[in-house]
Amino acid sequence: MAERAQRKIPDSSRRSERSRRAIHEAALALIGEVGYAKTTIEGIAARAGVGKQTIYRWWPSKAAVLLEAFLDLTGEAAGAGEVGGEGESESEAYAIPDTGDLEADLKLVLRATVDQMNDPRFDVPSRALAAEGIVNLELGTEFVRKLLEPQLQLYVRRLTAAQATEAGGVRRGVDPRIALELLVGPVTHRWMLRTAPLTHEYTDAVVEYALYGLAPRP
Amino acid sequence: MAERAQRKIPDSSRRSERSRRAIHEAALALIGEVGYAKTTIEGIAARAGVGKQTIYRWWPSKAAVLLEAFLDLTGEAAGAGEVGGEGESESEAYAIPDTGDLEADLKLVLRATVDQMNDPRFDVPSRALAAEGIVNLELGTEFVRKLLEPQLQLYVRRLTAAQATEAGGVRRGVDPRIALELLVGPVTHRWMLRTAPLTHEYTDAVVEYALYGLAPRP
Repeated sequence: MAERAQRKIPDSSRRSERSRRAIHEAALALIGEVGYAKTTIEGIAARAGVGKQTIYRWWPSKAAVLLEAFLDLTGEAAGAGEVGGEGESESEAYAIPDTGDLEADLKLVLRATVDQMNDPRFDVPSRALAAEGIVNLELGTEFVRKLLEPQLQLYVRRLTAAQATEAGGVRRGVDPRIALELLVGPVTHRWMLRTAPLTHEYTDAVVEYALYGLAPRP
Repeated sequence: MAERAQRKIPDSSRRSERSRRAIHEAALALIGEVGYAKTTIEGIAARAGVGKQTIYRWWPSKAAVLLEAFLDLTGEAAGAGEVGGEGESESEAYAIPDTGDLEADLKLVLRATVDQMNDPRFDVPSRALAAEGIVNLELGTEFVRKLLEPQLQLYVRRLTAAQATEAGGVRRGVDPRIALELLVGPVTHRWMLRTAPLTHEYTDAVVEYALYGLAPRP
């Protein structure tokens, strides 16, 4: 502890990391409070306690700051799970666990997803971003491409792996890119529209219904 | 025709109906163009060519005008389907068809749903409303209660009816209120987030996956 207190020499890489995080947090807080349209680079800079030139030096636009802030936010949550090797990119670093039990793996992931949706630190800025993306084609498209679709591809990979083995739990002929929407769609629908509470009982039921179907089994 | 042209005597109920429709159309057009926050009673009145007192006489608030306009909009589309008797309320007047073939009935309804989502007259104002509802708890709650939940209850009724008969197509133990979300959730997710095209092939696959499950059948 004494040693730490003595380290007063400025460390520029550490200071940058601190600024980066402060800027991300300011961006997420602001979009949650005033919405996307009224969030400005100036506002983010003032809240983060940095000059606006600092932001302009690192990011080309408000959308770019927010994109990175959301990647950071969702990455932090996903980081509790699997972490890949050094050489991998950020989106490759996370995966849906594959214990061989697809039902258990999907239940785990969807429980974690609704825990995140029920956390105001995620919920408030994410709602503001989603609301803007719904009416703003350009922003919506960019965020889906860079933020949402890589997450959906984790399901594609897990479902494709399941399909490749006899006891994997997904029948042939099923398109994994559509199949994942039976898991993610209901949960997102309930989150966005607040039709009913997002509980673990709910996500467990969604996984069971999606895997085994609503029709009676022959 | 000649007879019609002679009817120049003002008919107040017909004139009211015309005003009501003009106000609905103006409200939907405005929310689509400027968003919920910037849509005002004054703006709706000006666009509809009526005095703002006309609107205040019939509706207590902007939200109430929009709610009725959306009920009208979705009712028009649903009106192509089944229409109930005189004594029934508006929400009871529509139902998901029950031909005894659940798969066919659900495919029909979801195809019609995405046709509507792909129609700019529905898409543009509905996006604006959804965007506001996501960040505005009060409005979101009211619109879900009055507009969305009654539509979801049509699925509950159809799935419950299917569950009541041996060959109905839904196994016992399935909660219809959750089951419907495996149909509506994926479609709404794709619509709101524009992750991929909303086609009939897609909705047919969603129905098949939801009914028969992703897991191999024993």
